Amino acid sequence: MRAGYLQFRPVFGDPEANIKKIRKLIGKKKFDLLVLPELANSGYLFSNKNELKELSEEIPRGKFCSALTEICNKSNGHIISGICERSGNKFYNSSVLVYPDGKIITYRKLHLFNTEKKWFSKGNLPLKVNEIRLQNSERVKTGMMICFDWIFPETARTLALQGAQIICHPSNLVMQYCQRAMFARALENHVFTITANRTGKDVKSDGEISFTGQSVILSPKGNYLSKGPKNRDECVILNINPSDALNKNINSKNNLYSDRRKDFYGIN
Amino acid sequence: MRAGYLQFRPVFGDPEANIKKIRKLIGKKKFDLLVLPELANSGYLFSNKNELKELSEEIPRGKFCSALTEICNKSNGHIISGICERSGNKFYNSSVLVYPDGKIITYRKLHLFNTEKKWFSKGNLPLKVNEIRLQNSERVKTGMMICFDWIFPETARTLALQGAQIICHPSNLVMQYCQRAMFARALENHVFTITANRTGKDVKSDGEISFTGQSVILSPKGNYLSKGPKNRDECVILNINPSDALNKNINSKNNLYSDRRKDFYGIN
Repeated sequence: MRAGYLQFRPVFGDPEANIKKIRKLIGKKKFDLLVLPELANSGYLFSNKNELKELSEEIPRGKFCSALTEICNKSNGHIISGICERSGNKFYNSSVLVYPDGKIITYRKLHLFNTEKKWFSKGNLPLKVNEIRLQNSERVKTGMMICFDWIFPETARTLALQGAQIICHPSNLVMQYCQRAMFARALENHVFTITANRTGKDVKSDGEISFTGQSVILSPKGNYLSKGPKNRDECVILNINPSDALNKNINSKNNLYSDRRKDFYGIN
Repeated sequence: MRAGYLQFRPVFGDPEANIKKIRKLIGKKKFDLLVLPELANSGYLFSNKNELKELSEEIPRGKFCSALTEICNKSNGHIISGICERSGNKFYNSSVLVYPDGKIITYRKLHLFNTEKKWFSKGNLPLKVNEIRLQNSERVKTGMMICFDWIFPETARTLALQGAQIICHPSNLVMQYCQRAMFARALENHVFTITANRTGKDVKSDGEISFTGQSVILSPKGNYLSKGPKNRDECVILNINPSDALNKNINSKNNLYSDRRKDFYGIN
């Protein structure tokens, strides 16, 4: 299947410009699954609640979702993107899985980072695996987590144990820990991971924040199949074999899942 | 506190030689906590059950435990070492925490690797944190895991959630995944980790196996405080501040433990 990421710099406060940029960078590329950064519609650095109200949208009927649906429909592919979501009077740092037929699945970031706690409500939806159907009719299980979710090994683990073959990871990373640590996330779960990070800065009168780019795709054996640049836009789509993630054997006697000693774990 | 590892090549089938080597490499070094490799008394590559019977010992009354106790007593320090354990008619790939006063705590490897399954019974003791008392009277919580246990994030997590400040990790690693992945284990749990790996080969008429050395010590922020050579013996003892592992804050708004969303994890 053809899977990858779109790394770019969302312009804060200009969803229209961001949609335009996304359309342009995707162009006529073919993909089964494309992952976009966190908060790809709005940008990251909010200063007040009014900005949130203006820049968020309801799922599925907002403009950003409509644009993504149109792209997916035309290309017969799926997009997973970060999105600034409004639901009633609450706001979520969310991601959507958009199907070519217009179906949309939402995930809301469980672990909010730093000042996000000021603006967003904590995610309240279960970690779920969603099946997508490729153009060759193969079915592939995908999972979503957002940025800081990565540092809690339980997030990827929960998705992987449900059968996720590809963990899709819209991000706005400010440090480079994650890109290194995804090695462990991929390997310990024997899954593909696609971390789509943004680049550039959000600059506001009351502060600024820089993002680290270097989006990464890892194989179930922990190989870096792609690593993006620090500052440039990039759309990388690779041929991967998602069934590589079905085999959890390390060797003829070890299986990453059946070897688990659940009775001895005290995680909860 | 002074904590570190002893990296060396145990001679297969010669526990006396291994004790001698350990004594020599430790010399008069001062330490509060020293971690030795997996199966440090026996070596790794067993060919038959008779070898296991000969090279294993009962805890705490075997010769290896006695020798470690003597070393700990003299140096007023603690040793965590891998040990080939016999208990009744069963054998375990175990580790011991040896106190200066002769007290010994046992852990039995929960996740056996490859052909170890042929020789050893699976660990049947809970993952537990054990307090040690330093020469300055400070109390420090330590945890034990053995080699392949690392790939299951639940192992280190279970110890960390019990309050482990230092995860001690006797190993006989044949690949180099672990040394890289310990970055994630240290960082995601904000704990020190000490992976004591062996070097060299075990060569038998029916096969051979090589080990990768490069023992590592990581800080709670994921910094490599030490990385050993591939092939040489090495005893590294560093000054570390174990209380660095008590603070689970990432920034003023995020705490690695209180931010966990347990209700959403489906690990068991």
